[in-house]
Amino acid sequence: MRTVDLIHRKRDGEELSAEEITFLVDGYSDGTIPDYQASAFLMAVFFSGMTDREVDTLTGRMVASGESVDLSSIPGIKVDKHSTGGVGDKTSLIAAPLAAAAGVVVPMISGRALGHTGGTLDKLESIPGFRTSLTIDEFKAQLLEHKLAFIGQTPEVAPADGKFYALRDASATVESIPLIASSIMAKKLAVGLDALVLDVKVGAGAFIKRQVDARRLAQMMAGIGRRMNKRVTALITDMNQPLGYAVGNALEVMEVSQTLQNAGPADLTRLSLELAARMIFLGKITATLDEARELAQKKLLDGSGYRKLKDVISAQGGNPAVLDRFDLLPNATGMREIMSPRAGYISAIDAEYIGQASSMIGAGRNTKEDTIDPAVGVILEVKVGQKVDAGAVLCRLYYTREDDVEEGAQLVEDAFRISSTPPENRELILEVVG
Amino acid sequence: MRTVDLIHRKRDGEELSAEEITFLVDGYSDGTIPDYQASAFLMAVFFSGMTDREVDTLTGRMVASGESVDLSSIPGIKVDKHSTGGVGDKTSLIAAPLAAAAGVVVPMISGRALGHTGGTLDKLESIPGFRTSLTIDEFKAQLLEHKLAFIGQTPEVAPADGKFYALRDASATVESIPLIASSIMAKKLAVGLDALVLDVKVGAGAFIKRQVDARRLAQMMAGIGRRMNKRVTALITDMNQPLGYAVGNALEVMEVSQTLQNAGPADLTRLSLELAARMIFLGKITATLDEARELAQKKLLDGSGYRKLKDVISAQGGNPAVLDRFDLLPNATGMREIMSPRAGYISAIDAEYIGQASSMIGAGRNTKEDTIDPAVGVILEVKVGQKVDAGAVLCRLYYTREDDVEEGAQLVEDAFRISSTPPENRELILEVVG
Repeated sequence: MRTVDLIHRKRDGEELSAEEITFLVDGYSDGTIPDYQASAFLMAVFFSGMTDREVDTLTGRMVASGESVDLSSIPGIKVDKHSTGGVGDKTSLIAAPLAAAAGVVVPMISGRALGHTGGTLDKLESIPGFRTSLTIDEFKAQLLEHKLAFIGQTPEVAPADGKFYALRDASATVESIPLIASSIMAKKLAVGLDALVLDVKVGAGAFIKRQVDARRLAQMMAGIGRRMNKRVTALITDMNQPLGYAVGNALEVMEVSQTLQNAGPADLTRLSLELAARMIFLGKITATLDEARELAQKKLLDGSGYRKLKDVISAQGGNPAVLDRFDLLPNATGMREIMSPRAGYISAIDAEYIGQASSMIGAGRNTKEDTIDPAVGVILEVKVGQKVDAGAVLCRLYYTREDDVEEGAQLVEDAFRISSTPPENRELILEVVG
Repeated sequence: MRTVDLIHRKRDGEELSAEEITFLVDGYSDGTIPDYQASAFLMAVFFSGMTDREVDTLTGRMVASGESVDLSSIPGIKVDKHSTGGVGDKTSLIAAPLAAAAGVVVPMISGRALGHTGGTLDKLESIPGFRTSLTIDEFKAQLLEHKLAFIGQTPEVAPADGKFYALRDASATVESIPLIASSIMAKKLAVGLDALVLDVKVGAGAFIKRQVDARRLAQMMAGIGRRMNKRVTALITDMNQPLGYAVGNALEVMEVSQTLQNAGPADLTRLSLELAARMIFLGKITATLDEARELAQKKLLDGSGYRKLKDVISAQGGNPAVLDRFDLLPNATGMREIMSPRAGYISAIDAEYIGQASSMIGAGRNTKEDTIDPAVGVILEVKVGQKVDAGAVLCRLYYTREDDVEEGAQLVEDAFRISSTPPENRELILEVVG
């Protein structure tokens, strides 16, 4: 079998056999296939796509490249939740405690901020003392006791995916539906999950800009899961404006606390409840989805989701008092208000611009090596559809260093569109797949 | 400027600026851009194509990566001829002597066999003593004296092209129209040519299978030349059956000799004369193309093309007597006849199969490191359209080692299609571009 022939056939749109996909994945992982052939193959996949059989094999080899985490010793149905990445997307920190409070076991493997999107691990690490680098034994023990634990991806899980991801990042082949699908699913399937709720973000602030692509990705991930006997539901949700008001790590933790006390933004609350309900339903805690929705709502209103998050913060070494006393969280030293240039209706808030501005002043990373400033970010004062007067505050930038604030403020200003007529209502949850 | 952004934009079909193409070509040449990014870029070009401006810049940077050969000290108009590669294609060895005999200066930079197609240099090197590795000074001196010299590509000419070509070969990106066009034209433009006649082969035995692709390649190469103030004419010619009867290095030299003595195959004679006429016309030896055709014909009939090739063989260290005494050429030791399984008309002779069989028994190379056996090859006994009886000899395989003969014979047998009705006549010269 010659690598160049396999690239050639994929380039020309043919389906490769399981043996051939295995040859490519294992060969690149063990170094027998050079990176210049692997990157050409990835670009050919970008254009030619992959069949279900191909993507199943690819995912399976990614999983097989590393260790699997066996959670069978922990009783209960294990359900994780994964978002493809958005701006102000802190739903994991709300939906997971609600689902765990309802009885679902939630082994949450989370990611870090990259580009203009945030990461759950970075948000958690803005809490003084919070430790995301649990050992597998600590992770299991915490799941047993609290039904919820947050952990980063360990290097032992799907290392081939890590190697391919670095190459995709350098070769402009990140945005390939089958490559995204197999990368996400490999990391999830390497952990002993029973079910998975996916939040596929679409719009200006997401990696995926078009609903048709989000649907293809959702269907492909759901298919991979289904064929591996995992229950998978994917919500396709709007990411044209940031979710909630807060963008930035500690700022988002504060908003999580408010939301778990039923004092959060409407959009964030609604989506978090729906995600929690989907987790509860897939976790077979209730017989119907409507019952799951009621239960999620109940766990919000009675404060048990809020208490669950406090318990987990304590268990992972953090100070749970931060959820009541925001002054215990890292706080920005400077603040800049962005005013509306005229009266009108907010017709759009470009989430990518807001995410980039937030990242630029220190809340995110442009390269994997950048360090994060947990205190900084953006707080919106308005959402799409709202009426504003000229000079009204549109948002506030919180910063600790003066560098890049000017440029960040400019980006944020450009993010807002003010029009004379109210915009059409946009659905938050666009579609459900699986 | 980040390489990954340029790959991304090319992937998405955008035009890159001259500065950006320069950054990529120079960066890969000098090693600052890694091969895994270069190969992903090449695959993106395969799918997204290139604009005229992009391909001009690419070609220009390839030329600028090395030395240019200055032929301005040699009087006369310099015209080269280039074929994209075929099976049994020995027209260079016929058209070039005819054009030189008519007064055109022909600085012929030739290539080697690769895959199932032959190379002019390998054919010439089957002549005992023939030296293709002339120095530039020897090359010029010979052009001055004989108006014709054959030389291989020197490593000083367009070295970036050599580096890119090796990467394309390994990454399944050879068959990209703009990459083929710029690679060919860079090597030609690095030599001080005034005009160029291209023979773009199309069909089963060529790299390009469809006439529409051949036309795009021809138009692209002609455009590159035209914008560099070179006169370029491209013939698009049929390569569904081998050209002439002989396939294999010394075997083809014998057929060249017969053809230059006006005793060669009709198709080979016709195409060689047309190519020579185009060279004569672009070389401004005659005022019209019809006059050029008459002159080429005259140089064939009066034997001056034949004598020109003898002079050039002498000048480059070979024994010119090989053109009269074929026993002085390397001769095969074994011969196998392939018989027709039934009576009928020859409706097709798959040139790729014939070329592969010939290469398999030693006439060609599968990798650049393979050595060539100059003696071996295939002699057809029939051409498409001919009527044969059952048991008639279709062709003969000439070999020196028994290995692979069985497999080669099988391939050759599979190349012939025998049908009960005569096939439609197929044009040899399909189109003229430029």
